[in-house]
Amino acid sequence: MNCSRRWSWSAGVILLGLATSLAAQDSPAPSAKRDSAPRIEYAIAIHGGAGWEPEKLSKEDRQRHREALTRAIHVGRDILDKGGSALDAVEQTIRVLEDEPLYNAGRGAVFNNVGQHELDAAIMNGRSRQAGGVAGLTTVKNPISLARLVMTETRHVLLIGAGAEKFADEMVKRPQIERVPNEYFSTEVRRREWQDAVAREKLRPAQATPGKGTVGCVARDKQGDLAAGTSTGGLTNKKWGRVGAVPVVGSGTYADNRTCAVSGTGTGEIFLLHCAAFQLHSLMLLRDQSLDQATRQIIDETLPEDSGGVIAVDARGRISMRCNTPGMARAALDSRGQLEIHFER
Amino acid sequence: MNCSRRWSWSAGVILLGLATSLAAQDSPAPSAKRDSAPRIEYAIAIHGGAGWEPEKLSKEDRQRHREALTRAIHVGRDILDKGGSALDAVEQTIRVLEDEPLYNAGRGAVFNNVGQHELDAAIMNGRSRQAGGVAGLTTVKNPISLARLVMTETRHVLLIGAGAEKFADEMVKRPQIERVPNEYFSTEVRRREWQDAVAREKLRPAQATPGKGTVGCVARDKQGDLAAGTSTGGLTNKKWGRVGAVPVVGSGTYADNRTCAVSGTGTGEIFLLHCAAFQLHSLMLLRDQSLDQATRQIIDETLPEDSGGVIAVDARGRISMRCNTPGMARAALDSRGQLEIHFER
Repeated sequence: MNCSRRWSWSAGVILLGLATSLAAQDSPAPSAKRDSAPRIEYAIAIHGGAGWEPEKLSKEDRQRHREALTRAIHVGRDILDKGGSALDAVEQTIRVLEDEPLYNAGRGAVFNNVGQHELDAAIMNGRSRQAGGVAGLTTVKNPISLARLVMTETRHVLLIGAGAEKFADEMVKRPQIERVPNEYFSTEVRRREWQDAVAREKLRPAQATPGKGTVGCVARDKQGDLAAGTSTGGLTNKKWGRVGAVPVVGSGTYADNRTCAVSGTGTGEIFLLHCAAFQLHSLMLLRDQSLDQATRQIIDETLPEDSGGVIAVDARGRISMRCNTPGMARAALDSRGQLEIHFER
Repeated sequence: MNCSRRWSWSAGVILLGLATSLAAQDSPAPSAKRDSAPRIEYAIAIHGGAGWEPEKLSKEDRQRHREALTRAIHVGRDILDKGGSALDAVEQTIRVLEDEPLYNAGRGAVFNNVGQHELDAAIMNGRSRQAGGVAGLTTVKNPISLARLVMTETRHVLLIGAGAEKFADEMVKRPQIERVPNEYFSTEVRRREWQDAVAREKLRPAQATPGKGTVGCVARDKQGDLAAGTSTGGLTNKKWGRVGAVPVVGSGTYADNRTCAVSGTGTGEIFLLHCAAFQLHSLMLLRDQSLDQATRQIIDETLPEDSGGVIAVDARGRISMRCNTPGMARAALDSRGQLEIHFER
């Protein structure tokens, strides 16, 4: 039923011992071990989207996800371990996931209804409570980095479409803003998904399909600062400039040092209407709920069944990952050194 | 200090006796009168934007605003009085304000940095908690009506830019979707404001200026349903496809029959980062605050000074209108029949 981290030491759990100082060298009951563990210095969690159906993942599929998620989360972990900021960890981790064709963000993004790619991303700094979002990008290799520049280099929070591309033109000297032709984002898997969606639409019009594999990252650094980010290609066969929750602060992404950093994935429209990420923050701030309580309330009670999931980290470095879809690809790691990767709900 | 309706029976207040059944025929202390008044059958409030400086408004300016606000609110009032829906009242009232060149929405929208107009709007139904938003429109005469069609005719919540224009193409048979050349939105006043902004930018780069006159409407109908809508041209001299809070559900606009309907105006980025409209709703839902308490907390305590204002109506038809800017053009009217128009804080 639940995919909260605390209760997830069950069948689907993978433990990889890591060569960090605090790695468990024996194998006690993990939750007991954790409860008596020292203060969490830093923590990071990532997702590769809700909507994956674990029973349809082959052993090879799972292995590819495991490798991709492990590679990405270690990039962020290394930044945090060296005392880097949560914001840097989130940006760099998401860049790895954007470059990974397995996920619907950056390369591997889904096709829209004219066979192209339109990308959305947002990032938020929990210390300053500043944020940046971009929607409808077509030539920016790593949308998450442009979102960060919206936050730091403009007085704005959300830039869209051709205008956002013009902003990227002005950021040309920043090495993190690499431009690519729109075809760069194409993969054969996504092309087939699109062709299938087009065929289905002929039978039943106006069916844009959730693209499995939105990516997100939340982190808490050694300074106690939180950050969150999310990046996506949106819906397969989408049209009309449809934008979901990802680029919208408060819907797909939110971070506030007082409460938590959160990244969501699922049916964007539902996250938008519920201001899902901000609502999770609000339950902690206004109702004094714990991260776990707030995550349960949002995912189990507030959002409709099969609408998505969230990953979140609170000010003390506790992580919660929860979904109401059949699965959500996700991983978590903290300064105590154990990596968890899950797919099942 | 405050511009709450309840305390606003002071210098700036205008009372117009209306020929409705419940209109006050004598002049008692209004708050006493109100407290003993019968149940409010319906209520409506509108704004024509924060950022107006009342001391700079000439007598003629004020008269133009009074006439425009009165004309608009009566359109919504008539719909509500006949038993029409809050949603219809909000859409039709905002159409009047969009057509009125005085306001920064529809005709009279501000110029962007290339001398054109990009329009944003959103509408939300408090009964269904469905919503629609559009950003970056260039040829749709009444953006609020396209936002409503996003809500009712698509499975989406937010459409942007060229894609949103394509959606408008498909809605061509709807009489409420009239198309106009982009120059239709231009007025000489806004052109001069833009030229002034361009001249200022040469002295001090990257200065987009808040455009006075975003419009919004909130209503409660005889059935007890709530609705809210907002429409704007955004910032004078804006660039990069900048989008503020207006088209984003939860930031500039929110409606939920359990709590309130709210429309905001001010610095869009601040409303976005605070999910201001949703936050007001959350204070009522999670903290059991009254509409007036929640509005005060948002405007007086949460949002930075001089960032904007909100109008809101609760499930019982009580109205709150409050800003932390020097002024906000606004009007309110309910089934008891007295019209209030205010400019001062």
